[in-house]
Amino acid sequence: MFESAEIGHKLGKAEYKREAPKLRQALLEAQYELLENGKFPVVILVNGVDGAGKGETVNLLNEWMDPRHIHTHAFGEMTDAERQRPEMWRFWQALPPKGRIGILFGSWYTDPILRRVMGHDKRAVFERRLERIRHFERMLAAEGALVLKLWFHLSKAAQKKRFKELLASKKTAWRVGPGDWERFKHYDEFVDICEDALRETGTGEAPWQVIEGSDPEYRSLTAGRMLLDALRARLKGAAPRLSPAAPPPEPPIDKRNILNSLDYTRRLAPKAYDKRLEKAQARLNQLTRHKRMRERSLVMVFEGMDAAGKGSTIRRLTRAMDARYYRVIPIAAPTDEERAQPYLWRFWRRIPGHGAAAIFDRSWYGRVLVERVEGFCAEADWMRAYHEINDFEEQLGDAGGIVAKFWLAVTPQEQLRRFRERQKIAYKRFKITDEDWRNRKKWPRYEQAICDMIDRTSTDLAPWHVVAANDKLHARVEVIERLCDLVESRL
Amino acid sequence: MFESAEIGHKLGKAEYKREAPKLRQALLEAQYELLENGKFPVVILVNGVDGAGKGETVNLLNEWMDPRHIHTHAFGEMTDAERQRPEMWRFWQALPPKGRIGILFGSWYTDPILRRVMGHDKRAVFERRLERIRHFERMLAAEGALVLKLWFHLSKAAQKKRFKELLASKKTAWRVGPGDWERFKHYDEFVDICEDALRETGTGEAPWQVIEGSDPEYRSLTAGRMLLDALRARLKGAAPRLSPAAPPPEPPIDKRNILNSLDYTRRLAPKAYDKRLEKAQARLNQLTRHKRMRERSLVMVFEGMDAAGKGSTIRRLTRAMDARYYRVIPIAAPTDEERAQPYLWRFWRRIPGHGAAAIFDRSWYGRVLVERVEGFCAEADWMRAYHEINDFEEQLGDAGGIVAKFWLAVTPQEQLRRFRERQKIAYKRFKITDEDWRNRKKWPRYEQAICDMIDRTSTDLAPWHVVAANDKLHARVEVIERLCDLVESRL
Repeated sequence: MFESAEIGHKLGKAEYKREAPKLRQALLEAQYELLENGKFPVVILVNGVDGAGKGETVNLLNEWMDPRHIHTHAFGEMTDAERQRPEMWRFWQALPPKGRIGILFGSWYTDPILRRVMGHDKRAVFERRLERIRHFERMLAAEGALVLKLWFHLSKAAQKKRFKELLASKKTAWRVGPGDWERFKHYDEFVDICEDALRETGTGEAPWQVIEGSDPEYRSLTAGRMLLDALRARLKGAAPRLSPAAPPPEPPIDKRNILNSLDYTRRLAPKAYDKRLEKAQARLNQLTRHKRMRERSLVMVFEGMDAAGKGSTIRRLTRAMDARYYRVIPIAAPTDEERAQPYLWRFWRRIPGHGAAAIFDRSWYGRVLVERVEGFCAEADWMRAYHEINDFEEQLGDAGGIVAKFWLAVTPQEQLRRFRERQKIAYKRFKITDEDWRNRKKWPRYEQAICDMIDRTSTDLAPWHVVAANDKLHARVEVIERLCDLVESRL
Repeated sequence: MFESAEIGHKLGKAEYKREAPKLRQALLEAQYELLENGKFPVVILVNGVDGAGKGETVNLLNEWMDPRHIHTHAFGEMTDAERQRPEMWRFWQALPPKGRIGILFGSWYTDPILRRVMGHDKRAVFERRLERIRHFERMLAAEGALVLKLWFHLSKAAQKKRFKELLASKKTAWRVGPGDWERFKHYDEFVDICEDALRETGTGEAPWQVIEGSDPEYRSLTAGRMLLDALRARLKGAAPRLSPAAPPPEPPIDKRNILNSLDYTRRLAPKAYDKRLEKAQARLNQLTRHKRMRERSLVMVFEGMDAAGKGSTIRRLTRAMDARYYRVIPIAAPTDEERAQPYLWRFWRRIPGHGAAAIFDRSWYGRVLVERVEGFCAEADWMRAYHEINDFEEQLGDAGGIVAKFWLAVTPQEQLRRFRERQKIAYKRFKITDEDWRNRKKWPRYEQAICDMIDRTSTDLAPWHVVAANDKLHARVEVIERLCDLVESRL
């Protein structure tokens, strides 16, 4: 994998002087075209062995292009906010918006490789982390990002030579730390593991580009050209071709599904309701104040057809908790900052740290519900979303999150009754719009989308709780009780 | 100040049961009206003595209204990101957008009061912090926010009783910590200092409302009514009346000003330029890697007429620094998230932590330049901005920030020459628009705005560096050298 990057690539200084200004001008023009086009972000990963010129290349790209539209991020020690969230959280925060270039120095590859080299992670863990990275990059590519992964390599002899050169000058000696020599001792092991990582993550949508790092002129011109070629190809070409999705699942031939086989007749009398609600709320209150919850976060998702009672259920839930503990996040149209990012970005930015809860009133499932039914995204987009969502929730779980998802199910008849009631009551009238009536006409298509969603995203780690909600009292108690059961089982 | 809140206010349970549902309905309706109106945010501060029902009130407000549109924040220990920035930074992050209600539990009053009580801050420091709060709240009010400051009070005897009651029940005993008893010992001193704080910050635009906290029914209904009254009055009324601004300053009668008395003839020959630039860049590089810079942040501001050379100067600057150290922030139109916040919010969100630099390509000075000249904001708004900006920069300085501001000055003749040149060169054509020509016609008005800005915001702490930029080479070197001088003087 690194064979071609150990043969001593070199470029004459004269050739460099001739070529660099042209390349630079071309890069700058391509960058402005990207900015005006504004349709996709460019994510450049800068990785490789120590001393191979990673930092120099990052600086050079900033020098060659307009640094005002480049977001450069270096990842060091985690902050306390980062430690409380999935490891990918900080990379999500660093993604450039459409039209911009993000340079990530020390990317999502650094920690998995180093922990494997140092023996902190077993092979299986390492493989799993690489798999997660593959999924993440596939998602980025599918969302339209141009992902350029640069790997800067040095042979063992070249690395040693490079360190000695740096140490020889006062100006550069600071750049070789004790950690660098320590890692140099593990060179063979390190390169072995890097090779594994590159092999397993060199995908069609985000291939690795290996660059020999010993000669600055060769290295700089090569990296710049790779970026230029990728940018130009993408600016010329249409949107990247999505891998063709499998055809969407057909509804079952006997017309039975998880929604129409629910028991909607369950009722709770007001007196029994008061009693059970109070008990369930007290239980939830105790649970959220449990010692072990200080190391956990709680992510709740509420979905359901219009007028299914999400809002009123959430209010019964929040009453059981301290207002400092939770945040309710109503999901409406994305803001323009959110629209310039991959679909899941706006949810990632809202996930809670330890000892905190987020209640999503509608959620990332909009992708496979309203966006699917209304045609707001392509079939391939919502088809891949199931997997992306499962992956997202798994990451939440791995970071100590408890994910509780509720579908409040009402029958079409009950919805109609509630719509009419809302129209009658003055202060509820704002809750019913023409759009609600339009959505209602698409009931069968929503029903299929819902059933597909539950089948594909109800997992052990984050199961869907489908609650019959024709009777509001029954639904509210049921939700809080099930939430308590789930939290209890996870503590 | 607390006399009326020690007389044992009480409300019958029957009256509460009769009144609470009505209040609740009215609050909910007002909240939805606010949401639909979307014109101003509501900031509720919840402060007061321990045990006076602050937490209960926060929970109750969340219960009475729709928690989906309330942002509740409790402020505990600072995170590491917060410690590296001005103390108001975390409150800026917590401000609700227009149309929403933000409840701040433990607000900007908590720390100044506690540090004064504990004797960590001298009287003068305390006064200074209160003054800063006054400025901040005046800014919030001027930006349209409804600021409701609730103070929950208990007499000494009532506080003691309350603690004993809480301790008596297993369910509530956890709420009295050892810190509470410790603070109780300082009750008299605490209340004395609180009185000072309330007196000095009870302004016309953000008055304090003191509520006796011993009786839950009285307390809850009183707090709810205060919010309802404030909300209703504001929803009915027009925008709050801004205090009339002093008339804008007239240009000096002899027509001489800081811009037209600059020496624009200074030139630098290319050879001398190369030499001095290299030297200045090396110096800057060393300075940014200085040990003491790890505890400091660097905030650079670049302003200037169109085509004054901001972009190219910034690029000479960034070349001297490691790309991981700085971020360039080009300021264009605000995003919709930014438009829903006070004017300075979008700059606060971008200020760097320690060991980092931000380079603003245009900045908060847009308020007193383009917004003034184009009439994008009212006269009273840009008139108050000078003071708000000075205050902002002072806070940056107090938190270890070095603020460097550069005005690149060109003559109208030189601008014209550059505009024409840009039109000729293919890849520069995107840099010149109809708007640039329109702005040019308003030169005299811009000139006055610039001179006013420099006069009013060039401070000891954050002086303006006005650089004659008719010769680009001279300007670039001058900027980097002056920046180095400034940084050096601050280390």
